[in-house]
Amino acid sequence: MGNYGELDELAINTIRLLAVDATFHANSGHPGAPMGMAPVAHVLFNKFMSFNPKNPKWPNRDRFVLSNGHGCMLQYALLHLFGYALSMDDLKHFRHVDSITPGHPESHDTPGIEVTTGPLGQGFSNAVGLAIAQAHTGGVFNKPGFDLFNNHTYVFFGDGCAMEGIASEAASLAGHLQLGNLICIYDDNHISIDGDTKVSFTEDVTKRFEAYGWHTQWVQHGDNDYDAIEQAIQKAKDVTDKPSMIKLTTTIGFGSLHQGTGAVHGSALKKDDIVQVKKKFGFDPEKSFVVPQPVYDMYHKHAADGAAKEQEWNSLLEKYSSEHKELAEQLKRRLTGDLPKGWQEKLPTYKPTDPAIASRKLSESVLEAIHEVVPELLSGSADLTGSNNTRWKNAVDFQPPSLGIGDWTGRYLRYGVREHGMAAIMNGMSAYGTIIPASGTFLNFVSYAAGAVRLSSLSHQRVIYIATHDSIGLGEDGPTHQPIETLAHFRALPNMMVWRPADGNETSAAYYMALTSKETPSILALTRQNLPQLEASSIEGAIKGGYTALEDKNAQITLVSTGSEVSICLEAVKYLKDNNNIVARVASLPCWEVFDAQSKEYRLSVIPDGIPSMSVEVMTTLGWEKYSHDQFGLNRFGASGAYKDVYKKFEFTPEGIAKRAVATVDFWKDVKPIRSPINRAFTQLI
Amino acid sequence: MGNYGELDELAINTIRLLAVDATFHANSGHPGAPMGMAPVAHVLFNKFMSFNPKNPKWPNRDRFVLSNGHGCMLQYALLHLFGYALSMDDLKHFRHVDSITPGHPESHDTPGIEVTTGPLGQGFSNAVGLAIAQAHTGGVFNKPGFDLFNNHTYVFFGDGCAMEGIASEAASLAGHLQLGNLICIYDDNHISIDGDTKVSFTEDVTKRFEAYGWHTQWVQHGDNDYDAIEQAIQKAKDVTDKPSMIKLTTTIGFGSLHQGTGAVHGSALKKDDIVQVKKKFGFDPEKSFVVPQPVYDMYHKHAADGAAKEQEWNSLLEKYSSEHKELAEQLKRRLTGDLPKGWQEKLPTYKPTDPAIASRKLSESVLEAIHEVVPELLSGSADLTGSNNTRWKNAVDFQPPSLGIGDWTGRYLRYGVREHGMAAIMNGMSAYGTIIPASGTFLNFVSYAAGAVRLSSLSHQRVIYIATHDSIGLGEDGPTHQPIETLAHFRALPNMMVWRPADGNETSAAYYMALTSKETPSILALTRQNLPQLEASSIEGAIKGGYTALEDKNAQITLVSTGSEVSICLEAVKYLKDNNNIVARVASLPCWEVFDAQSKEYRLSVIPDGIPSMSVEVMTTLGWEKYSHDQFGLNRFGASGAYKDVYKKFEFTPEGIAKRAVATVDFWKDVKPIRSPINRAFTQLI
Ligand SMILES: [Ca+2]
Ligand SMILES: [Ca+2]
Repeated sequence: MGNYGELDELAINTIRLLAVDATFHANSGHPGAPMGMAPVAHVLFNKFMSFNPKNPKWPNRDRFVLSNGHGCMLQYALLHLFGYALSMDDLKHFRHVDSITPGHPESHDTPGIEVTTGPLGQGFSNAVGLAIAQAHTGGVFNKPGFDLFNNHTYVFFGDGCAMEGIASEAASLAGHLQLGNLICIYDDNHISIDGDTKVSFTEDVTKRFEAYGWHTQWVQHGDNDYDAIEQAIQKAKDVTDKPSMIKLTTTIGFGSLHQGTGAVHGSALKKDDIVQVKKKFGFDPEKSFVVPQPVYDMYHKHAADGAAKEQEWNSLLEKYSSEHKELAEQLKRRLTGDLPKGWQEKLPTYKPTDPAIASRKLSESVLEAIHEVVPELLSGSADLTGSNNTRWKNAVDFQPPSLGIGDWTGRYLRYGVREHGMAAIMNGMSAYGTIIPASGTFLNFVSYAAGAVRLSSLSHQRVIYIATHDSIGLGEDGPTHQPIETLAHFRALPNMMVWRPADGNETSAAYYMALTSKETPSILALTRQNLPQLEASSIEGAIKGGYTALEDKNAQITLVSTGSEVSICLEAVKYLKDNNNIVARVASLPCWEVFDAQSKEYRLSVIPDGIPSMSVEVMTTLGWEKYSHDQFGLNRFGASGAYKDVYKKFEFTPEGIAKRAVATVDFWKDVKPIRSPINRAFTQLI
Repeated sequence: MGNYGELDELAINTIRLLAVDATFHANSGHPGAPMGMAPVAHVLFNKFMSFNPKNPKWPNRDRFVLSNGHGCMLQYALLHLFGYALSMDDLKHFRHVDSITPGHPESHDTPGIEVTTGPLGQGFSNAVGLAIAQAHTGGVFNKPGFDLFNNHTYVFFGDGCAMEGIASEAASLAGHLQLGNLICIYDDNHISIDGDTKVSFTEDVTKRFEAYGWHTQWVQHGDNDYDAIEQAIQKAKDVTDKPSMIKLTTTIGFGSLHQGTGAVHGSALKKDDIVQVKKKFGFDPEKSFVVPQPVYDMYHKHAADGAAKEQEWNSLLEKYSSEHKELAEQLKRRLTGDLPKGWQEKLPTYKPTDPAIASRKLSESVLEAIHEVVPELLSGSADLTGSNNTRWKNAVDFQPPSLGIGDWTGRYLRYGVREHGMAAIMNGMSAYGTIIPASGTFLNFVSYAAGAVRLSSLSHQRVIYIATHDSIGLGEDGPTHQPIETLAHFRALPNMMVWRPADGNETSAAYYMALTSKETPSILALTRQNLPQLEASSIEGAIKGGYTALEDKNAQITLVSTGSEVSICLEAVKYLKDNNNIVARVASLPCWEVFDAQSKEYRLSVIPDGIPSMSVEVMTTLGWEKYSHDQFGLNRFGASGAYKDVYKKFEFTPEGIAKRAVATVDFWKDVKPIRSPINRAFTQLI
């Protein structure tokens, strides 16, 4: 056992049994992974990781990510033992409603959880983001004698994560970026839910990681060779120019009668099994949730060491503050999540006489205008830089210096064609605490990233998806690239701001809200084609999520629209007047989530009672019933052709809109009263 | 040049220039890939591929997939040259509205296109499905002396596809399955949209494919070493126990002044460049869309050979029909897409007195009941077999026989934790023409597959997503696993049937429609928790997509619901009667897409005029305004806990529903007339 003794054994078995007891108590959960990974967790946390349970947000703490999040009882047990604000009672309420110990780890619920995991492959990819963030933050703030940011990111992942494409994407990028601060431990237990991994997963994982440019090792006896585990992690730390993957062969459910089989993966152990495993480990089979005091003492000692390290770091930061005043102030500000005072004055504004510009270009102008005053902004693209317009002119690429094409201070990340990995990496970067990531792909391919986008929302990450080519307006690329369902999808996602700006001021407003909403991610849906600057648009109006773009007190109908269709609606108003003698008004609704948060009075001023409203948007009508009595949209796939031809084909023209507006006015004339759809019988659960 | 002469050179340059002319004419598109890959296309199609342009659906044709679908002018040029129903005029209308030559290849638009590609990584993964389908179809139907199905599947893919996680998933599975009939050619041109691939993609692709268990080769001079190309493809064919990957180093935009750079990737060549390249290739720079007659002759000769091969095959099939009568009949039927007569009589039906059963179990009962009469059904799961209930008892796994755990005739595919890959593989299997693929994951993780699910719809594939654990009703796993936005997302997707059955008869109805709708994919959202059998449910009612689950001519409100909430609504009706003296009726709406296709009269009978309606579903309300005046749903993330506690927390109880129904009745009492939301001012574009 080398450096390890009985107390270590006792601690490891304590963790195993806490997982056994909690899953039994919940009658639900995953005991197998915690029982198999308790040894490596014990070694990693006690011998390598620096953290202070009394301040889980200490900026230079080592990060730990449990990518196989279903094994979260392992992590909850560790957090409890080290003295985080997670009590024995919390462990007893594992998987109970309103507990801080949910079925999978959620970062906004539980102190000490860095990122929200469970959906497989996400945590691994978040960790790549955390490692990028460390490298970048260190690159920006470290100075000779001030190694302020030098933490490591440690990951546990299992076969499931290894099979997911998202993790392949992130691993390939991590290898390219030579992230020497990233150490990933692969729980090679040969079991996934379908049983033996030989039924579907027979590749050579180690060789694959080598192909990505990783340093790899194999610890053959992960159940009990603690010294080998320690040596492997130390070796991984010593390799500083490559990420490290340690294949750790373990026995799932170690100690159970069914160890090494799928039976211990996803359900609690049976009573007799629990009795025998407790006996085997020298515990009283009659007792549950037992932590021997020496185990607490050992873990609390390590926690105290961590607290002392934070103290040292705080002193270092104080000294840094006098020697590097401006940088220190910037760092402290960034850690609060606040933007610098007055930054928003840099946001471009537009007059109606300014030229028509595509909103992807308007977005580029925002980035150009603000990147100096918002140094935490780190942009990028999934290999569509020239199309997404995500790169400001003098940007430096974030690259390992050895490649000669950028450095760690670089604020432009080339993600490659890896949308899902990109989104999860952004979540990890955001979780680090010093960066606001923004990155581009076509709106249609944000769907590739849906799994990670969902977690941006659930875990309250301030990330910005710059989603260009937002509709049939992209034209020639055709239906494979033209979003129809995409905005409905993400508008239905809680805690997500979906913006579809109609012009320059609305684009600036979208960025304003995206950057200042600390707990909410954003998708900016932007056009390929040019958009005129609207008469009534302003940042002040648009940051309300919706506003009146054309008022007329005599209006017989409200046209409610977004993005590229708002200006066509304004033309339709003229057409209706001239050809149908109908007076119409127009509401622009760039962001539903934000509009919904306004007072009812305000919302009714935008979509008033007494007249019908009709929505106009060149994609699915689904959801637009919320703001309109009738809907003009596209409930079919688009077409490949010049965008004006495509718009004409589907009648998104002043005439096409007018025709339907006439029908709407006619259809609603017999209903009394006509109530704005803003009125509801009861309040929604949000 | 070995076996290749001037005519080959001429043909290759003809293809290159067709791509140059078409993209110039369209002022849009991607000339670079066709110019770089014309040599390998020429060799592959003429020396290896068997197909009959006059019958693009010949079952044993070799399949070709252009995974880098943006290079589709390459494929359109080939189709034209070989004599498919794709004229020179069609090439001239490349990327024009209503042409059969859209910006990316669409299988339902264009004869000879096997699968719809462009979204990167999809085609590669479809090809894995096509190869699986060949292996399975051969396994089932081939007999000694009757090698009816022995075609190969050939793929071109580029750096973009190689970076996408979906392709990693599919490649890993293809290696596991030892698909010797799959030959993939990697266009190693060092260029992606962001320029040199060294900015984000420096992994060793060949080594990675070796790690997956593939046979690999490298052709260093892909621009002109036609013999080496031919030899490599032949060698790949000779390896029959592994899929093959040929890394082919080429020059993107070969012949252009900007060859080998990103400038030729995604936009047409400039005029002067076109002049020089035509001169360089010995073509008249004044002429466009030129095909020398000898090139037509050469390609038509190969087409005629293919037609003759089909003739031989037809004769073989005729002989087979007499020696293996039943199998031949089954094969011919399967090729029509029709199910066997009377198959639906096997669908389980339920009485109200039958026990409550989870719909995932009801789904299992359907599979158990019909798998013998529907032999084209091939089930599977993304490593959730026991949770998705996707495997009938005596199923054989689809596995390479050498593993000893299944064989090629197996009808159960273990996809591993690879949801996106799984969906694209299913699309490919469906496109082969002899299989109806169905496969499971949790509903929440169908989102991981969104990119491929979209293409199921766009390309009219009959695939079935068995999506269990459909809501907060999954309980303890918590918010990371509980869908909120998912049904809205897929309901907004055109040509997708989203089913959320409420009981056994509705589950059977969902399968009936999923299996008989030849051109429409389905998502079946199924519960983990038990559901009672409803009084009024029947297959006949449910296959209309919606029906009246409880009628009362005196009703003051309609409760519109799906799945697990329908039975709670029925309880709420009693509660409303007893506590509020309100009469309510209930509509069950298991599939919107199908319900929308019914007559207006029928739809109004389900959601009538004169009274308000309120929707009840434990997820986003978005879209429910289409069928209801007010909505009770969950516009926030769920919670981890026992499912009954979670339902109670969010008030999805008879009391919680009744409270809101009372508010709805009260809220609408002053409006005259109350019109059913089924009434619309105008018809949607579908
Ligand atoms: Ca495992
Ligand atoms: Ca390339």
